[in-house]
Amino acid sequence: MSFVLTNIGELFTAGPEGVLRDAAVVVDGSTIAWVGSASQAPAADESVDARGAAVVPGFVDSHSHLVFAGDRADEFDARMSGQPYTAGGIRRTVAATRAASDEALAAHTGRLLDEALRSGTTTIEIKSGYGLTVADERRSLEVASRFTSEVTFLGAHVVPAGASPDAYVDLVAGEMLDAVVGIATWIDVFCDRGAFDVDQARRILTAGASRGLGVRMHANQLGPSGAARLGVELGAASVDHCTFLTDEDVDALAGSSTVATFVPGAEFSTRQPFPRIDRLRDAGVSYAIATDCNPGSSFTSSMPFCIALAVREMHMTPTEALLAATSGGAQALRRTDIGRIVVGAQADLVLLDAPSFVHLAYRPGVHLVKDVWQRGRRTTTWLPRP
Amino acid sequence: MSFVLTNIGELFTAGPEGVLRDAAVVVDGSTIAWVGSASQAPAADESVDARGAAVVPGFVDSHSHLVFAGDRADEFDARMSGQPYTAGGIRRTVAATRAASDEALAAHTGRLLDEALRSGTTTIEIKSGYGLTVADERRSLEVASRFTSEVTFLGAHVVPAGASPDAYVDLVAGEMLDAVVGIATWIDVFCDRGAFDVDQARRILTAGASRGLGVRMHANQLGPSGAARLGVELGAASVDHCTFLTDEDVDALAGSSTVATFVPGAEFSTRQPFPRIDRLRDAGVSYAIATDCNPGSSFTSSMPFCIALAVREMHMTPTEALLAATSGGAQALRRTDIGRIVVGAQADLVLLDAPSFVHLAYRPGVHLVKDVWQRGRRTTTWLPRP
Repeated sequence: MSFVLTNIGELFTAGPEGVLRDAAVVVDGSTIAWVGSASQAPAADESVDARGAAVVPGFVDSHSHLVFAGDRADEFDARMSGQPYTAGGIRRTVAATRAASDEALAAHTGRLLDEALRSGTTTIEIKSGYGLTVADERRSLEVASRFTSEVTFLGAHVVPAGASPDAYVDLVAGEMLDAVVGIATWIDVFCDRGAFDVDQARRILTAGASRGLGVRMHANQLGPSGAARLGVELGAASVDHCTFLTDEDVDALAGSSTVATFVPGAEFSTRQPFPRIDRLRDAGVSYAIATDCNPGSSFTSSMPFCIALAVREMHMTPTEALLAATSGGAQALRRTDIGRIVVGAQADLVLLDAPSFVHLAYRPGVHLVKDVWQRGRRTTTWLPRP
Repeated sequence: MSFVLTNIGELFTAGPEGVLRDAAVVVDGSTIAWVGSASQAPAADESVDARGAAVVPGFVDSHSHLVFAGDRADEFDARMSGQPYTAGGIRRTVAATRAASDEALAAHTGRLLDEALRSGTTTIEIKSGYGLTVADERRSLEVASRFTSEVTFLGAHVVPAGASPDAYVDLVAGEMLDAVVGIATWIDVFCDRGAFDVDQARRILTAGASRGLGVRMHANQLGPSGAARLGVELGAASVDHCTFLTDEDVDALAGSSTVATFVPGAEFSTRQPFPRIDRLRDAGVSYAIATDCNPGSSFTSSMPFCIALAVREMHMTPTEALLAATSGGAQALRRTDIGRIVVGAQADLVLLDAPSFVHLAYRPGVHLVKDVWQRGRRTTTWLPRP
């Protein structure tokens, strides 16, 4: 089964061809088979008319916490009335998550994924971290793995209530890790004040890496901590948040293959200052943006919203922000098959209700996603993991 | 024809009853006939189950510029790369608007209104201001009046290219005003640097008021100018923008019936500082929020986005922001029949895909509007003016 998406007014490839006008894309099965000028497009089984609108790659959301139960709207309301954000609220979600059945968790995750898909996300990374027991972390990862291959073990999200930090680090790096190898593909630590320090993070991440898990980190969200440099030291695919980076952090990232992933939705919802992209751009650091979707500090699933924030607040250009949300996200997951509209890539496409990709930032808050193809299928509900 | 919307988990009335739990609303024709506990709701012809979700009043967007043609995404892109915002870009939209047919203008306005409706807006004010000739201002207002009764003559948006400022003020306050009386209900002036000064604004607004038009203003967007105090002096229903208010401005507003209408989408899209609500709250000033939807400085039609900005950036509580977007907007239009879910009000209702109205700010960028009733009719397209 093939189709041609034609009469594309503006095609943002996120690849070497940049932005093409009057373009077409041919999809064969789940793969992009041809990209070029609409007037030269080969025949296909079906044809879809973009009517001059813009087409962009499906968004790659490389940082989310979508396996949880409960709601913390009351905490958000209180914070917006002047209370500071700390990691402590996570424990409320832990209690609700532990109390939920597997099916309730999966149904909730699925609803949030449908919502993300309808705003253009076609690949997502999902972390555990609201279980914090061997059994609850394992089942959180099993739920995540129904939906995505990018499954991250975040047993080291916070120290659970009543536990000794050292004993909990032992558990995470030992028995808990044993239980999740084979399900998770990544390991992550929330390395910040109120969570885990650099030495604890090093121990856990090293243990995970020795079992074949890729390394990613929550780094430098609440202050400069050395976490980002630890990520570089350990060859992390990505260090995420990066709200507070020192010049040394930027230098370390610039000389590395580690992506700096920004989650401006978290700065938005916790009233933290937004980091600016200037220094990283100048230093040649690779960067991505992601939603950090979670019920405490960033309850948005919308990559277009994050693009608008990255432009307004982080001073990315619209082009930089869209690259960060597509090919940048792919790089943060060490993937080359997604995030770009190039021949051979997975056919993840978003047809906008707009003549230009710039509208994603120019029209903030407006629902501009008209149609989404995930792995070659036009869909309004998230496809199960293949 | 009546219906009961029942099993409402949280009903934000924006009226004296505040927020009700486990509530129901009965609508008879286009009017709210009953509000109270779901268990005590009277029978109706039909029943709609809210399944525990939140219901809020339809949003009242008291400031928009929806009659225009053309797109300024390129200007936005350039501004986000460091160029400042001035009123000059308006002239590009003027050229495109003059060149468009009446039907093209109306179709474009209609599409934007459908978009606004789908994000929960049920009443909107629409300004002219991209015609700037007698004929083009008049036809812009005729287009606006197909869709809304809140039609604002903004001939004094900018001085058109090539015109003498004094001669243009004469035209606006004379022949142009003559041509629009009977179509417009309001008169507005963009009183700021690069547009019209306080003396010019006073002359135009006084002329409009003498012909029976209500007064509203663009005031204090680009700096403190005396415009807000002029609005108070003239008994304006609302002074809009208020990005830069002096303590004298706040004092003047506090002693008046003039509403301060904030348009945080404009600060977002022009990288201006967001005004904070604290001083106005403390002084007891009445305030509203609106989109300012226009192709130059705020191309969003989303009141939920503006609510999220008002909370994050202006330091409104979620309750204050939603009141500002509903009953506040109504007050800015001197309307008592909209913006509240109370008996006798117009049946403009929004069913959210969320358990609480707080989610409008807690879940920024997420499309949470499930169903909208405009004047008692569930609809996904804007109803024509009755």
